[in-house]
Amino acid sequence: MWFMRQAGRYMAEYRELRQRVTFLDLCNDADLACEATCQPIDAFGVDAAIVFSDILPVVQAIGREVRFDKGAGPRILEPVRNADDAKTLVRPDVADVLPVAPETIRRFIKARPGVPILGFAGAPFTLFCYLVEGAGSKDWVHAKRMIFEQPELARSILNLLADVVGDYLQAQIDAGAVAVQIFDTWAGTLSYDDYREFALPAVQRALARCSGAPRLYFAKDVSPFLDLLPQTGADAFGVDWRADIAQVRASLGADVPVQGNLDPIALFAPPDELRRRVRAIIQAAGPRGHIFNLGHGVIPSTPIEGVRAMVDEVKAWRW
Amino acid sequence: MWFMRQAGRYMAEYRELRQRVTFLDLCNDADLACEATCQPIDAFGVDAAIVFSDILPVVQAIGREVRFDKGAGPRILEPVRNADDAKTLVRPDVADVLPVAPETIRRFIKARPGVPILGFAGAPFTLFCYLVEGAGSKDWVHAKRMIFEQPELARSILNLLADVVGDYLQAQIDAGAVAVQIFDTWAGTLSYDDYREFALPAVQRALARCSGAPRLYFAKDVSPFLDLLPQTGADAFGVDWRADIAQVRASLGADVPVQGNLDPIALFAPPDELRRRVRAIIQAAGPRGHIFNLGHGVIPSTPIEGVRAMVDEVKAWRW
Repeated sequence: MWFMRQAGRYMAEYRELRQRVTFLDLCNDADLACEATCQPIDAFGVDAAIVFSDILPVVQAIGREVRFDKGAGPRILEPVRNADDAKTLVRPDVADVLPVAPETIRRFIKARPGVPILGFAGAPFTLFCYLVEGAGSKDWVHAKRMIFEQPELARSILNLLADVVGDYLQAQIDAGAVAVQIFDTWAGTLSYDDYREFALPAVQRALARCSGAPRLYFAKDVSPFLDLLPQTGADAFGVDWRADIAQVRASLGADVPVQGNLDPIALFAPPDELRRRVRAIIQAAGPRGHIFNLGHGVIPSTPIEGVRAMVDEVKAWRW
Repeated sequence: MWFMRQAGRYMAEYRELRQRVTFLDLCNDADLACEATCQPIDAFGVDAAIVFSDILPVVQAIGREVRFDKGAGPRILEPVRNADDAKTLVRPDVADVLPVAPETIRRFIKARPGVPILGFAGAPFTLFCYLVEGAGSKDWVHAKRMIFEQPELARSILNLLADVVGDYLQAQIDAGAVAVQIFDTWAGTLSYDDYREFALPAVQRALARCSGAPRLYFAKDVSPFLDLLPQTGADAFGVDWRADIAQVRASLGADVPVQGNLDPIALFAPPDELRRRVRAIIQAAGPRGHIFNLGHGVIPSTPIEGVRAMVDEVKAWRW
């Protein structure tokens, strides 16, 4: 077991770290990122660490400045809306421009020898959403308009993102990550056909560029696309908290490992109820090929006791 | 065909109406509501009207004041968080406290004779979310905490809401609605088990109280719960834009009517691409038992030409 947003604002240690530096500084400094990576390992004793980073360094790497202003979400200063904008994007050498996550992984391995560490990246479509929209959105009108109006341009940008994401994941594997995960937070805003035509081929392309460790794919709101997931080429799949994990396993096949899927808000439940829910998921997922996780990230107001009870209950389980 | 948020801010006629009166005034005045109901009928010639109203009058009817402050979402001044709060809720006579939607339906039938009109209500769980949380939310921590901590209290509030919703739909049928729809906007925030234990029984209970016209059930993010839908007792199901409508029909069975499911953002697409997408949905849904609709509501910035092209393309279709 590990869990999404393992280090985050629900932890006092993390809030203390964030009082010293900005989020961007934290992502850009392997020493600080290693410290954040260690925090949930030391606090909860989960089975694996996930490297502390963000998904947007890849957008910076292809030539767009990203701002994280206090209290607001990320902002891309010059969003890409047309072919002229896209011409200013660059195909970088990942070793040059994205050194921090691999370096954080190397430092973590020295700092906590024996603890497995996961690498990760945002999915090409999710990065495309930010790059085109310029900021988070409920409706992603600009990102979808590019798909509707300029599908070939959209595909070329997705291909660029996929290549960088693939190389970035490979660099994290080479640095010692025991597995890597692609986060496709916004794939679930697409219709089935658009997912198949745009988001899916980009994940395929990214994953085809990396090997040497299991590659996990997590998409939020993934239930409509379950039958397409095997085509991603991923080795295992994370599912959000809505889906019945037994149904997902039946659909994907017993040989396909699955990760998930406690409702992150269940961490607010009374301890007995929370522990009952943890056991129900373990039981429904079955004894083989299940990585326990949340169905999405921990929200900042989450009580630390809930996180601790979840981890304890998973670690106490015996088949 | 009709479409969700048929009257709304994307229409100049509606914006003009809203400059004269507040949203609440509009919902509380059958003459004005009838005017808003007529607008998309006159502008687009859709096959059916849906009564202009909101889902929150039911929350007011059980004893909670609702505010719609400019620029903000709805706010319930005294949210219900515990048993003492719940004691102050009332079981109203629907004919006394919710007269506007039925009266709007009667006036519409006189104003546009021969045009079928649909009634609607929010689903009990969706209303429960607002009642307990006190406002819209991304995570619905308070609403979910009540389910986790006080499941019997949650059930009793859901039962009260279900009874009022059922009677309210019946009153709309009695007023002349040719069909009624339950909107379960927030059911998709629940895990499969919580949906089955809380949202589903409340929909069953509401629908069991009304008859005499087809009853439709729309839930956003409904894909994880597809196999549970028949248990609602509804006569037809609306699906959001993510799901492949052919898969949904195969899952529910060819005899079950389905409504949907164009991505509302596709209304921003170039006309040819939009029309292609409309045809693809009609084709995938098949010749019988399909009500064309959007997969969610029209957003305010939607171009009116897109709405018109969608309606024209549906109406021009011949099998």
